[in-house]
Amino acid sequence: MDPKAHLQPPGGSGYLAWVRHYRRAWLSGDLTAGVVVSVMIIPQSMAYAMLAGLPVQVGLYASILPLIGYALFGSSMTMSVGPVAVTALMTAALLGPMAAIGSGEYLQLAIWLALLSGALLFLFGLLRLGFLANFLSHPVISGFISGAAVLIVLSQIPHLFGLSELPASPDALLAGWQPLNSLILFLGLVGLLWLLYARSLMARHLEQIGLAAPLAKILARLAPILVVVVGILVTDVWQLHDRGMPVVGELPAGLPSLVWTTPGWNTLYSLLLPALLISLVSFVESVSIAQSLARHKRQSIDANRELLGLGAANVGAGLSGGFAVCGGFSRSVVNDEAGAQTPLAGVVAALIIALILATLAPLFAQLPLVVLAVVILVAVTPLIDLSSLRRAWRYDRAEGLTLLLTALGVIFMGVEAGIILGIALSLAAQLWRGSRPHVAVLGRVPETDYFRNTKRHLVETEPHLLALRIDESIFFANTKAVEHAIQRALSDYPDTRELLLILSAVNHIDSTGLDMLSELSEGLAERDIRLHLAEVKGPVMDQLENTDWLEHQVDEVFPSTLIAFNTLSSINRPSANPEEVNP
Amino acid sequence: MDPKAHLQPPGGSGYLAWVRHYRRAWLSGDLTAGVVVSVMIIPQSMAYAMLAGLPVQVGLYASILPLIGYALFGSSMTMSVGPVAVTALMTAALLGPMAAIGSGEYLQLAIWLALLSGALLFLFGLLRLGFLANFLSHPVISGFISGAAVLIVLSQIPHLFGLSELPASPDALLAGWQPLNSLILFLGLVGLLWLLYARSLMARHLEQIGLAAPLAKILARLAPILVVVVGILVTDVWQLHDRGMPVVGELPAGLPSLVWTTPGWNTLYSLLLPALLISLVSFVESVSIAQSLARHKRQSIDANRELLGLGAANVGAGLSGGFAVCGGFSRSVVNDEAGAQTPLAGVVAALIIALILATLAPLFAQLPLVVLAVVILVAVTPLIDLSSLRRAWRYDRAEGLTLLLTALGVIFMGVEAGIILGIALSLAAQLWRGSRPHVAVLGRVPETDYFRNTKRHLVETEPHLLALRIDESIFFANTKAVEHAIQRALSDYPDTRELLLILSAVNHIDSTGLDMLSELSEGLAERDIRLHLAEVKGPVMDQLENTDWLEHQVDEVFPSTLIAFNTLSSINRPSANPEEVNP
Repeated sequence: MDPKAHLQPPGGSGYLAWVRHYRRAWLSGDLTAGVVVSVMIIPQSMAYAMLAGLPVQVGLYASILPLIGYALFGSSMTMSVGPVAVTALMTAALLGPMAAIGSGEYLQLAIWLALLSGALLFLFGLLRLGFLANFLSHPVISGFISGAAVLIVLSQIPHLFGLSELPASPDALLAGWQPLNSLILFLGLVGLLWLLYARSLMARHLEQIGLAAPLAKILARLAPILVVVVGILVTDVWQLHDRGMPVVGELPAGLPSLVWTTPGWNTLYSLLLPALLISLVSFVESVSIAQSLARHKRQSIDANRELLGLGAANVGAGLSGGFAVCGGFSRSVVNDEAGAQTPLAGVVAALIIALILATLAPLFAQLPLVVLAVVILVAVTPLIDLSSLRRAWRYDRAEGLTLLLTALGVIFMGVEAGIILGIALSLAAQLWRGSRPHVAVLGRVPETDYFRNTKRHLVETEPHLLALRIDESIFFANTKAVEHAIQRALSDYPDTRELLLILSAVNHIDSTGLDMLSELSEGLAERDIRLHLAEVKGPVMDQLENTDWLEHQVDEVFPSTLIAFNTLSSINRPSANPEEVNP
Repeated sequence: MDPKAHLQPPGGSGYLAWVRHYRRAWLSGDLTAGVVVSVMIIPQSMAYAMLAGLPVQVGLYASILPLIGYALFGSSMTMSVGPVAVTALMTAALLGPMAAIGSGEYLQLAIWLALLSGALLFLFGLLRLGFLANFLSHPVISGFISGAAVLIVLSQIPHLFGLSELPASPDALLAGWQPLNSLILFLGLVGLLWLLYARSLMARHLEQIGLAAPLAKILARLAPILVVVVGILVTDVWQLHDRGMPVVGELPAGLPSLVWTTPGWNTLYSLLLPALLISLVSFVESVSIAQSLARHKRQSIDANRELLGLGAANVGAGLSGGFAVCGGFSRSVVNDEAGAQTPLAGVVAALIIALILATLAPLFAQLPLVVLAVVILVAVTPLIDLSSLRRAWRYDRAEGLTLLLTALGVIFMGVEAGIILGIALSLAAQLWRGSRPHVAVLGRVPETDYFRNTKRHLVETEPHLLALRIDESIFFANTKAVEHAIQRALSDYPDTRELLLILSAVNHIDSTGLDMLSELSEGLAERDIRLHLAEVKGPVMDQLENTDWLEHQVDEVFPSTLIAFNTLSSINRPSANPEEVNP
């Protein structure tokens, strides 16, 4: 055992193990991280609530109980959950058709959506269904997120001009243009520049003026709060709200009261697919964040506990009047960098946010919406990930296409249709691949005991012996293709008397495949060609045992290609080895 | 070359090659078969038209042009196309919800359905899309046909009692019972017994009284026409029609006039899925019949020409006012046994049916419907195939279940839903299988050069070397499972310093899999374990080349497991072989 292992919190090893084994040494890190994260996530949480079409305080509500819910069940020590851009967009896109944005009904639906996806996630965790997330391939996730980011950027552009929606034409934009619009645009651009500077150069500059590297990093991460403060001050000082500046407006003071209303069955039913999609995306995103955090600390993540943790977080969000939450990448990284050791950091952050809500909420009334818009724009633009499109395309055309079509589907058909299209495409690509198997004619690499494709290597073959390696499980979608490949090889090698099928890459033969093989064998018998198998795997052999095909139509099953070659070539030829004939 | 090859018609070798190379010796066989088949298919064609909810003459129309259409394009020398039970049922089931059975609109829809599926089949043939049929696995086809046969049997039972539909209860049946019902039931049972006798024992009895075996067989095949003749005579002599006996009724005398009407876009659109399903089923059925006929004559079948032939046949059916056609098993077998050598036999049969329609049509007016019902019952009952359910279940639970659920789906949800359910289930089963890969720890079989699963065989392993064979392509649905299996093996063998992944069964690695492998490699590097590959296939190597993973994270790629074992064990241990240490 690594002696240092005990100095680290035991990620993934039993619920609340970190509480039982809590060490005093961790406390300062957890407290610092809690403070830093809470300050950082206040503008983010409000911005994402706005993105989801909800009152900004809903974002703050969703940043309290969920953190505590996750701390109870989750297995990551440093992941921070809360409102994130993609699930906020999904909330807006999925609920938009069901109720008017801004209405009480819409808010109610958002709360139910969080509760329902929380319940689904928790249920999947209890049933250990974490593997379901595997059906989202990386190109689908990547295409989905890029497409969602494009939608988010488009949705925020009107706020930059102080408008509530995109004007129909440039003419309409100019016709309605007021001096206030110019002011808002100016404020927005200054905010954008500050945020971009904070993200790229600020930490380095702070280090150059003498700050310690970790502190410089943390300060740079907290820079967005300055935009919030300046935005509030500017609006308040110049009374811009009275001149028509769009601002957040009055928040209900104080903490959220726990709400519980019962939706009808019809509503629940129509929320089911949206809740499932949000759950799936949240889970995949959270687990990948949790894993990348855990890896560099050599902790481990338990996917089923992540389901429980996320489920509890979303149920907590719904119960306290918040909307769907998920593990967030930037907030988790900040949490980690600020020294968080255990989920206690999250609990601290939750308490601070609760305190701020209880005391400072009235201040946020003067916060201009354009500030939240630039916070969103800067957070979301990096999610538009062209490099992964390039990489996927270069690695495999079909995967690049899946990524691109998923992104386009999200942008032009909506998040629901886009993600379903992506899943369908990746399944179809997989099936398509399986239906076109690679079948190679093998020969022996001279003076060795191994065998390679005659088309790729200079190898020796035996005229009477045709050795075919089938590079795919034989199942209904490829039985015809496998049969054709075998028949083609037989007509390319017309002297064949012994056909050897090498099944090292065949992991399963289904009944359609078995029927094909036994019809093939009948044809071989008529042409007086014997059929042999080599390198049949254990599980395949188990299944073939007791079939008529293996008992009556297969001549011999060899443990290795080498043994098959040596045995079969000595049967048909006077000498076992061509080299020995002419020494 | 087989010198006898020139004596046989050249199945599958160029359109109408049989016409250019026609030999006089084939003529008598083709003529005899044409006569026998035409007599045999008259009752069948009328019966299947009734099953499809269409006037009986539509079945006869569908037995003329289609035979000529198929002869022009098809590649089978002896397959006979025409109305068959399963497509007749599909026509009724798919069109039933769209128009009232018996109405002119229903007939029109049936004609368009034949035209549309003919056009689809022809198009698929031109685009060489024959492989699409591969998505119907054998369990799905088998389940579908059994389910359809159950539906067909149920649909014919009322005719046995002279009713138009099943009475709601036994009481209702008894309350409406007339002497005529008893007579019809008696006629039906006598007909059933005769048909069963003709199918089972008659040929043998005819041989015993001195007839030649082939003639006895043919006479037995023609026996159903006797039921038709007797049925007509009985009805005519006792004037049963006037007493309420359900009969075929007046047929329009003479040949069908070619009809051509244009359906609206909406109608075409709603016929598209039904046409696609009928095309798929017709194609799969016909190709399997054509192949089994061709095999025993050592001819070959070209799947794309079958698509063209079936397409032309269905277009011909539609143009002449008939309904969807398909290769029929029993009529093809009779054609073959009666000596057919080329599609000329089909052309002869078409001409004879046209002649009969032009002259004898009025006679069929007195044919009792119960006769057609027993023809259907005897033809269809053998399609309920419990033995293939038993076989599929024994071979693989998932496939048995797919077959059963497809059949139940057809029976309780309808043909359309049933077949789609079946396809979805077989795809899901395939994906499920791929998502749970078999991963084996390999060791060397003592005193040999080959390697086997440590759990199945007594093998030697090296303490520092963990050799894992991954028995599945690595793709998004199984990356987590593969990763878990590798991690589990690593914790079972904690002394591992060299991890060897044997990729002989990995036919593809998708980008999700590649991401998993490079994350895995990072973890290995941190634990100071080196990663090696062995037996990487050519196509996989092509794709991995130029990836960061292969260049930077994989230590070495070995051509064979043996070389990897020998190289890696000599690195870590003083002696390469445990046996050599203690001789």
